[in-house]
Amino acid sequence: MFLKNTWYVACTLDEIDGKPLGRKICNEAMVFFRGENGEVSALEDFCPHRGAPLSLGFVREGQLVCGYHGLTVGHDGRCAKMIGQRVGGFPAVRRYPSVERHGFIWVWPGDAAKANAAKIPHLEWAESEQWAYGGGLYHIGCDYRLMIDNLMDLTHETYVHASSIGQDEIEEAPPVTSAEGDSVVTSRHMENIMPPPFWAGALRANGLDGDVPCDRWQICRFTPPSHVMIEVGVAHAGKGGYHAAPEHKAGSIVVDFITPETDTSIWYFWGMARNYRPQDAELTAAIRKGQGQIFAEDQDMLEAQQRNLLTYPERRLLKLNIDSGGVQSRKVLDRLIAAERATEPEQV
Amino acid sequence: MFLKNTWYVACTLDEIDGKPLGRKICNEAMVFFRGENGEVSALEDFCPHRGAPLSLGFVREGQLVCGYHGLTVGHDGRCAKMIGQRVGGFPAVRRYPSVERHGFIWVWPGDAAKANAAKIPHLEWAESEQWAYGGGLYHIGCDYRLMIDNLMDLTHETYVHASSIGQDEIEEAPPVTSAEGDSVVTSRHMENIMPPPFWAGALRANGLDGDVPCDRWQICRFTPPSHVMIEVGVAHAGKGGYHAAPEHKAGSIVVDFITPETDTSIWYFWGMARNYRPQDAELTAAIRKGQGQIFAEDQDMLEAQQRNLLTYPERRLLKLNIDSGGVQSRKVLDRLIAAERATEPEQV
Amino acid sequence: MFLKNTWYVACTLDEIDGKPLGRKICNEAMVFFRGENGEVSALEDFCPHRGAPLSLGFVREGQLVCGYHGLTVGHDGRCAKMIGQRVGGFPAVRRYPSVERHGFIWVWPGDAAKANAAKIPHLEWAESEQWAYGGGLYHIGCDYRLMIDNLMDLTHETYVHASSIGQDEIEEAPPVTSAEGDSVVTSRHMENIMPPPFWAGALRANGLDGDVPCDRWQICRFTPPSHVMIEVGVAHAGKGGYHAAPEHKAGSIVVDFITPETDTSIWYFWGMARNYRPQDAELTAAIRKGQGQIFAEDQDMLEAQQRNLLTYPERRLLKLNIDSGGVQSRKVLDRLIAAERATEPEQV
Repeated sequence: MFLKNTWYVACTLDEIDGKPLGRKICNEAMVFFRGENGEVSALEDFCPHRGAPLSLGFVREGQLVCGYHGLTVGHDGRCAKMIGQRVGGFPAVRRYPSVERHGFIWVWPGDAAKANAAKIPHLEWAESEQWAYGGGLYHIGCDYRLMIDNLMDLTHETYVHASSIGQDEIEEAPPVTSAEGDSVVTSRHMENIMPPPFWAGALRANGLDGDVPCDRWQICRFTPPSHVMIEVGVAHAGKGGYHAAPEHKAGSIVVDFITPETDTSIWYFWGMARNYRPQDAELTAAIRKGQGQIFAEDQDMLEAQQRNLLTYPERRLLKLNIDSGGVQSRKVLDRLIAAERATEPEQV
Repeated sequence: MFLKNTWYVACTLDEIDGKPLGRKICNEAMVFFRGENGEVSALEDFCPHRGAPLSLGFVREGQLVCGYHGLTVGHDGRCAKMIGQRVGGFPAVRRYPSVERHGFIWVWPGDAAKANAAKIPHLEWAESEQWAYGGGLYHIGCDYRLMIDNLMDLTHETYVHASSIGQDEIEEAPPVTSAEGDSVVTSRHMENIMPPPFWAGALRANGLDGDVPCDRWQICRFTPPSHVMIEVGVAHAGKGGYHAAPEHKAGSIVVDFITPETDTSIWYFWGMARNYRPQDAELTAAIRKGQGQIFAEDQDMLEAQQRNLLTYPERRLLKLNIDSGGVQSRKVLDRLIAAERATEPEQV
Repeated sequence: MFLKNTWYVACTLDEIDGKPLGRKICNEAMVFFRGENGEVSALEDFCPHRGAPLSLGFVREGQLVCGYHGLTVGHDGRCAKMIGQRVGGFPAVRRYPSVERHGFIWVWPGDAAKANAAKIPHLEWAESEQWAYGGGLYHIGCDYRLMIDNLMDLTHETYVHASSIGQDEIEEAPPVTSAEGDSVVTSRHMENIMPPPFWAGALRANGLDGDVPCDRWQICRFTPPSHVMIEVGVAHAGKGGYHAAPEHKAGSIVVDFITPETDTSIWYFWGMARNYRPQDAELTAAIRKGQGQIFAEDQDMLEAQQRNLLTYPERRLLKLNIDSGGVQSRKVLDRLIAAERATEPEQV
């Protein structure tokens, strides 16, 4: 149950540095590699010779060489050579449209004819020198929609992340959810509260007092297929909150690209983009480490929730106001998936 | 294939000390916790909000708080509160009757309306100061009835526990089995034999010579659903055996509560109760350690036997005189399970 | 999809030295043990008493004693004794024909009435003092036919074993395949090439210069059910290659017995027999160690290939000239399996 005619984040650049990467995405086994001119290719991870995974091979002169018997595939999936063989009649390997952009490799698992690189979202923080970004990748055993739910309802911070970003005031401030086209936005504003440890540290890193009352905001934005960008931050109380001038606040964008691996597992690309002290690499590393620890706390809960839902598939869950962000995001997905299926040729 | 309208041992008291415990019993996912007044609750381990296991949460003021978004459940399973929410209309969590008694938490996985705490067996050794008890818990991958078979035919001691409690004379003494109502008793008496290492040690712990001929007894008593209490001991030969005066013997009760987890796995609560030197905590610990090592020897055999039976489901096994205890116990179970099903409403 | 009325290598002699060995072969759970007169027995690994695996027991006076309750089986599978029981009416345990020969235990998993020890292949290298043999056993998760393919197309050496026995010249020399009756032979001869590291070492071990141009040969011979013997070697160039006199060459026989465990796993007995310095045990150990490291390189590839083929069961693979050895071997197997099924009584 995922969109296939869309762009997903497949991997980061370091993952294909000098070697191919095998990764299953939307139930498709893919291999990613970088060609001689630096262009990136995504092919089916199946050698037409004897079925070995091409990802166990290596890249030579920009072509992917199967590690079993040496069948060599070009960036377009066509067999380029195999020593001692005439490869003209060999079947080509399926190619998936792929694009390098914003520091990631993006892949289109569906109908290649419909791929349009212009639909890859523009990410200002990935291009501007005013911003710094650090992030990582987690493999989690849950339906990608459980992670969307998780990120569109930050009430869970108080419980799952109690020691870092959680605080009682989160759940006391009701969120407001709205949908606009295919986007869903859930916002929560807390006023005149003490910042939790993570944010007290961020204020100090920004040269501000971390032990004074603040206004805090969380603005979660879902866009299909499964991206959730969250504007988060704190400002010293009474300075305008989200709209406060830069010298009164510390804020950033939590970046979440959720790429389905199978129906019950995901590749979760998480990170944080900030627009203060962007050249400070040590700060970037420190934030990345802290966020990595916090976001790892979700894994056990999501996997246990997934097992419970598989055990009791017929159960109806509650849909509270705090769940509205996830519920509306799923509605968008349901609508888009139905539309995609209606226009696709029947699959056997 | 297990009784559900009955009491099983669910856990020991230390397992719910200050935190909830998730445990599957008879294929039902349960969470156990202790409320503000000390009473114990067993609920379905499924939060009605988003399906997270409640056992990943925590206990606050005697209520169980879901660790994902904070839905709070009382000891009766009703939603007591959730910050920012009106919980009056929330569905209750299924409650399983549970009782603390004899140092264990007991649970009734079936129809709550039929639960009757008076049916929990009376265990004299658990209440009297004349007795000491030590035990442990093993998780084993086998049908609970294979463990009943195991305990109702102690012939296996000679092979599985050769270095501790086994001895050739066991299998040379034919057991006598009788059924009375729902109970099955298998007895074996050996006369004028040398005690094996475990019992030589028990005699010495009791101030008796461990290197002289003894009479030895094993009286295994099965009661539904899956409790096996075994009176075991040795007396110096010619002093009356099982009926010898206390100064001539060392005896104890092997305690076995077998709680099905699934069709092919169990929670096995084992222990030993003795009525000599009951205040000697060091002796209790030493016996517990020794028994734990001996009883761990059964695990590989039972799990391998289970795998073989799953591989060859159609095979008929032998039913020898030594198997009579297990065979008759299964007959009792078959009869009670059939009766339970006849009176239950049809399950879809 | 394997032949059952045939001889497979079941184990090596050390594996049944003083204790029984449980091993599944062709989906049959078997136990192997050596009797009082040294004869070897293969029985079904299932005790008729309660279904425990007999392989968890022990051998006493040449009989196999079940480790659970002591049922004792003779080499013919008949129950010989059980203390306190009359075993005359006990069902016998299924016996599989087994033979010790050439340093291995051979087993016939099919119809015992058709077993004929004369059909075990004669292995000159296993009997003659002019030869030395060293080998090992790997358990690999793949269809046995994928390993036959592997060994009948040594093109893979250039990729999988690049640092030891691989070299570009292998794939540049087209192989020649021929079938004769049930045998298939694939030969490849390379002339005037530099020997790769493994063979340079073998030349030196044989007292020859390892850094001069050589002629190299690989002659792979498949015989049913799944044996592949490969004559391999190098001779100083121009001395006659495969037919060169012993003082100009180093050669050996790669020995491969592939025994199916299940449809997707094998017991792979590999080794090397050589007819130079046969008394040099250190050399045997060194070759064995080197071969073990090289042959371990195939495991990841074969298991990944197997997973890919299970994921895409409908895919047609290429059948190139280099694949002809495997393709023709499979044709032999298909023909023999069809013949075996035609003459067997219907199995339910």
